[in-house]
Amino acid sequence: MPDSELDAYCTANQDRFVSELMDALRIPSISANPDHAGDVRRSAEFFAQSAVLAGFERAEVLETSGLPAVYAERIVDASLPTALVYGHHDVQPVDPLDEWSSPPFEPVVRDGVLYGRGAVDDKGQVWMHLKAVEAHLRVRGELPLNLKLIVEGEEESGSVHFEELIHGHRDRLAADVLVVSDTAMASPDVPSLCVGLRGLCNVEVHVHGPSSDLHSGAFGGAVANPIAALAQVLAGLHDPVSGRVMVPGFYDGVREPSAAEREQMARAPFSEAAFRAEAGGIAATVGEQGWTVNERRWARPTLEFNGIWGGYSGPGHKTIIPASAGAKISCRLVPDQVPDEVAAKVVAAVEAAAPAGVVVEALPHGGGRPVLTPLDHPAVQAAARAVAAVFGREPLLLRGGGSIPPVESFARLMGMPAVLVGLGLPDDRIHAPNEKFSLDMYAHGVRVLTRLWDELAVALRRVPVGG
Amino acid sequence: MPDSELDAYCTANQDRFVSELMDALRIPSISANPDHAGDVRRSAEFFAQSAVLAGFERAEVLETSGLPAVYAERIVDASLPTALVYGHHDVQPVDPLDEWSSPPFEPVVRDGVLYGRGAVDDKGQVWMHLKAVEAHLRVRGELPLNLKLIVEGEEESGSVHFEELIHGHRDRLAADVLVVSDTAMASPDVPSLCVGLRGLCNVEVHVHGPSSDLHSGAFGGAVANPIAALAQVLAGLHDPVSGRVMVPGFYDGVREPSAAEREQMARAPFSEAAFRAEAGGIAATVGEQGWTVNERRWARPTLEFNGIWGGYSGPGHKTIIPASAGAKISCRLVPDQVPDEVAAKVVAAVEAAAPAGVVVEALPHGGGRPVLTPLDHPAVQAAARAVAAVFGREPLLLRGGGSIPPVESFARLMGMPAVLVGLGLPDDRIHAPNEKFSLDMYAHGVRVLTRLWDELAVALRRVPVGG
Repeated sequence: MPDSELDAYCTANQDRFVSELMDALRIPSISANPDHAGDVRRSAEFFAQSAVLAGFERAEVLETSGLPAVYAERIVDASLPTALVYGHHDVQPVDPLDEWSSPPFEPVVRDGVLYGRGAVDDKGQVWMHLKAVEAHLRVRGELPLNLKLIVEGEEESGSVHFEELIHGHRDRLAADVLVVSDTAMASPDVPSLCVGLRGLCNVEVHVHGPSSDLHSGAFGGAVANPIAALAQVLAGLHDPVSGRVMVPGFYDGVREPSAAEREQMARAPFSEAAFRAEAGGIAATVGEQGWTVNERRWARPTLEFNGIWGGYSGPGHKTIIPASAGAKISCRLVPDQVPDEVAAKVVAAVEAAAPAGVVVEALPHGGGRPVLTPLDHPAVQAAARAVAAVFGREPLLLRGGGSIPPVESFARLMGMPAVLVGLGLPDDRIHAPNEKFSLDMYAHGVRVLTRLWDELAVALRRVPVGG
Repeated sequence: MPDSELDAYCTANQDRFVSELMDALRIPSISANPDHAGDVRRSAEFFAQSAVLAGFERAEVLETSGLPAVYAERIVDASLPTALVYGHHDVQPVDPLDEWSSPPFEPVVRDGVLYGRGAVDDKGQVWMHLKAVEAHLRVRGELPLNLKLIVEGEEESGSVHFEELIHGHRDRLAADVLVVSDTAMASPDVPSLCVGLRGLCNVEVHVHGPSSDLHSGAFGGAVANPIAALAQVLAGLHDPVSGRVMVPGFYDGVREPSAAEREQMARAPFSEAAFRAEAGGIAATVGEQGWTVNERRWARPTLEFNGIWGGYSGPGHKTIIPASAGAKISCRLVPDQVPDEVAAKVVAAVEAAAPAGVVVEALPHGGGRPVLTPLDHPAVQAAARAVAAVFGREPLLLRGGGSIPPVESFARLMGMPAVLVGLGLPDDRIHAPNEKFSLDMYAHGVRVLTRLWDELAVALRRVPVGG
């Protein structure tokens, strides 16, 4: 049921919501570039100040061993549910600069679209939260739940100090649900929520042969070639027919998506041609048989080769048997795979496949766990209702193929379920030149969030002790 | 039957033979380093002058588009057989310099061994030929055959202009047999001659996937990985059980060594442990089933991977599906494989193995043909008698696993059979620090060559027209 007062406030203030966001976008808070450390700090101060202006009781810049985050809170009543909003105020680098139609840190609106670095990833989506809080307070004078906000400054450089923040501020960050607006919907006409993200683990492989490169004429035919051995080991990790990963035990514990979830995924708009173009002009999609492209990307684990090296790769020919070769492997994981366990299985499979004459060494690096909030979780259903009220259509409940490490950190360290209410669109060019955010989606986002606080307040209300 | 006069002359002059060679070794004629171009020229002039002093009628520096060679000849009588000696006066680079026990261009004798860059590869072995000519002329006043000498200045940098020399001086280089002293014997106690060398061809493989690297979370599972495709293609080129190359038609035309030749190879001294140490401390020898290590290296074709690349190989992890991957392949060939034909078959096999979703491109580079002089060729038998007379033991007739491109050029362009009378030893450290030449082998070499001219003069004598 639409809340006409909140909507009216949002409509009346939309132009200011846009111009304020444009001020935020003018700060070049590129976390990956140390030259911009001062800008990232300035951005943190700007967001803290803006949180207070929006109505948070208190906000502060939280120091880390790296770049600063922002924490803000409005605690209405200890008996009410508490939501923690996670976002980031740092942005990606901007090169290649000459592909931008307008300067990345001079935001402009063209044809109802806001262009600028950070427009949607993630300053614009954090700003939706600030403005939803403002709307609640101006219209009703109070929030219907306790709200906390953590806006990180290192997401685009790997969130490397984020768990330090969790460990250092555990009590302040405690909440019933994590709300993240850092993803995209399927399309403007097909609203969606993200309920799951894949996990990750890494393995590096080194194949050692002779102590130095050998002459392939003098030795070739009698000495195992480390590149040949590596190719054999890597090729054995997939079944070329079924597309399945051949690591023993790799699929142990994989929770298959329910029929209901597969049905949601099947309803996500998908064009094979558009996907192939988006994937860099590939000739065909491939993957595990028995699953659609979206299911392969969202709900199935994968084993990928990220890099390979060995011997001579310069111009012309060098007729050697190289001393060594190596490769980097990473696996995307789905519930309930455990990164360290999968990495150990990959290590075992790689080492077991070592052919005679070489030594194969595999080094595991456990990564992050997959996360998945059940479709029927009250917070998910609350978010779905909020989206449906604004878009006039039930959102699909989908997953994402990648990871947002802080979401995994909150799940693992604090057992916090997450709901990802992202208002981006698939073609928003995050991380690329001409990043953009549809002003319609931005406006819809503020309205969705004003409803989300109401819905969460009801859905997560605590049963009184003894009740 | 020993020739006591020639032997006596060699014995009497051995010290001078060594000191003259040491003068040649003092010229740092490193052909790969342009800074030493002047030294290579000085070396050519020194060898030309030394050839005349040894008794050649005329000698000259032959210009090429690169570094100069030396040509010398002594034409005794047009009706006599003609031998052409090939060698090279350029040397390998010397680094790592700090591993040399004495400076590379300040030759010294320690315990009957001459140390210095070029001692055995190939200045010392060319010098044997000069001194054998000198001995013949001083003791007998004339050679028993016509002798020509071509001493190249670019062998250690690939003989890239050598065919230019052949084309430009075809008549002068014409001969009945090519004699090369640029190889090693099996051991001091097991003299050997080399009668065959493997050929070579190259193929470069490129696997193209997406137009740029993709996020492995967003796309992994639905997009073919170029590294995986490359590993699959390369792994399919060998049968891991039989060790055979799986390229269709690869073994077409391969001439198997005769029972007599296999018997010679079986008599070559071989220690598995010593070979594994020499091959850089490998854990085991491998290769095509049904053949010994030496047969695999000398008489069987191989397909090796010389380099591989793709994706990210720096520190840490980068979770991408790389845009492309590639590899360099080279094949060692045996009679009667034709390099262009084998390269075309490898290209076809690689491209046929391309999995869906990637484009596999294979670029052929034909190399050199294999060479093999029949064991019963009169020149081989003549050389065998010469070696047997000096070493007191019949030499084994073996092959080498690598290539000497000029030997292949003479065979292909002029139909010239080759006999490789090398006096090196397997541990002479050619191309490495502390290159050396046993003075016993050096002295034996001069004696072998004095006999070789006599033997060849008889073995290759022309039947008079009408006779």
